[in-house]
Amino acid sequence: MVGAELDAKPLIEDLYLAYTEILDDGDLRSWPDLFTDDGEYHIVAKENRDRGLPLALMRCESKGMIEDRVNAILQLSMYQPRVLRHLISALHVRPTPPDRGAPRFDVTANYAVFQTLADEETTVLSTGRYLDVVAIEHDTARFRKKVCVYDNPLVPNSLVYPL
Amino acid sequence: MVGAELDAKPLIEDLYLAYTEILDDGDLRSWPDLFTDDGEYHIVAKENRDRGLPLALMRCESKGMIEDRVNAILQLSMYQPRVLRHLISALHVRPTPPDRGAPRFDVTANYAVFQTLADEETTVLSTGRYLDVVAIEHDTARFRKKVCVYDNPLVPNSLVYPL
Amino acid sequence: MVGAELDAKPLIEDLYLAYTEILDDGDLRSWPDLFTDDGEYHIVAKENRDRGLPLALMRCESKGMIEDRVNAILQLSMYQPRVLRHLISALHVRPTPPDRGAPRFDVTANYAVFQTLADEETTVLSTGRYLDVVAIEHDTARFRKKVCVYDNPLVPNSLVYPL
Repeated sequence: MVGAELDAKPLIEDLYLAYTEILDDGDLRSWPDLFTDDGEYHIVAKENRDRGLPLALMRCESKGMIEDRVNAILQLSMYQPRVLRHLISALHVRPTPPDRGAPRFDVTANYAVFQTLADEETTVLSTGRYLDVVAIEHDTARFRKKVCVYDNPLVPNSLVYPL
Repeated sequence: MVGAELDAKPLIEDLYLAYTEILDDGDLRSWPDLFTDDGEYHIVAKENRDRGLPLALMRCESKGMIEDRVNAILQLSMYQPRVLRHLISALHVRPTPPDRGAPRFDVTANYAVFQTLADEETTVLSTGRYLDVVAIEHDTARFRKKVCVYDNPLVPNSLVYPL
Repeated sequence: MVGAELDAKPLIEDLYLAYTEILDDGDLRSWPDLFTDDGEYHIVAKENRDRGLPLALMRCESKGMIEDRVNAILQLSMYQPRVLRHLISALHVRPTPPDRGAPRFDVTANYAVFQTLADEETTVLSTGRYLDVVAIEHDTARFRKKVCVYDNPLVPNSLVYPL
């Protein structure tokens, strides 16, 4: 790792901690703050991605769309209580050309999300890979683009929630 | 991260490695050594914690109670062979006021515990979150308090073992 | 950690990132490159290992045997599409005596491998522990020996693939 990468890595790790904490135990309303103003969020099936198909289960191409998604989730998900739990692998961090002076990094990692529904056993909701671009602005790491590539094409209907 | 936190982090990471290794593959008799003399160990359901209910599945309020629990487990768990396997997320480490001169840190992390019973498939025994306080004494990190908050209120009867 | 260990740790972490990426999303043909020329790869059941039995599910005692295994997998596994996804815990890194001048480290970690087959739910294929020896040569970490100790003696027939 070079200097800039060494300095950025703890900031990037903090971003992934915050991501996990907000989705599993926190207030979803603060989730869009983890994205840059031009931030994007995509959920795509590995099968489609491997074939080069442009299909996506969720595609938010601006921070406004991310905020809209959060509002939709908060209205929809009240009726079915459930707990999600993320495990994310070690992060693979590689520098990528900066954008308007902000250092940027490609960050990849494996994830598993477990789901606990009332009166049911805990199951594996989704496994997959993050293919992200993280920007550092004012000593804070944020997602310029987050792409969740999920392994299982059999997506539960309930998957309106971020992975 | 500030200086003290940077110095402490490898010690804290070693503590979690030791915790996992003892529970999954080691000698449970050495598990109480991971706690300070006034160490506490709690297992509580997320649902109860979220509601502010004081219920706990396991509550050890002193190192003596932790040692008693270990003795009980060693006597009980002989008849049913099983293997546990822990995965713990990246640790979120934050300094908290020291106690009698010992630096202390709030440490949170997600966990998943997998269980393998004879002649059965490996399953997810429990997922949840650690909400811990770690103290550094004589260059060694130990749990001043470990709180395991588990997601699934349907706890298997067999859960007498630490998470 | 002492100096050599501090310097080596990022290299070792990169090795495990590459291991995961190749097995889950990459080209298996580049997998043998992660081993030293005298590298070994073993898969053994925890039960057999605990009993001191010399049985192994897979035993490659040279890089040539590892390459043979890769060729066999590439021919066999075409007919059943499936996705594997690894999660590996924090690495426990300890120096061990060097071999012909190359620094070496004992590295242990927990792993979970998830499997997604077409039209089925994602399941836990295997959990267990890595007991590895990593050598540093020319600023690159490679496996001198990788031993995967899996928890569940009920191994799926399909387990011809590395863990």
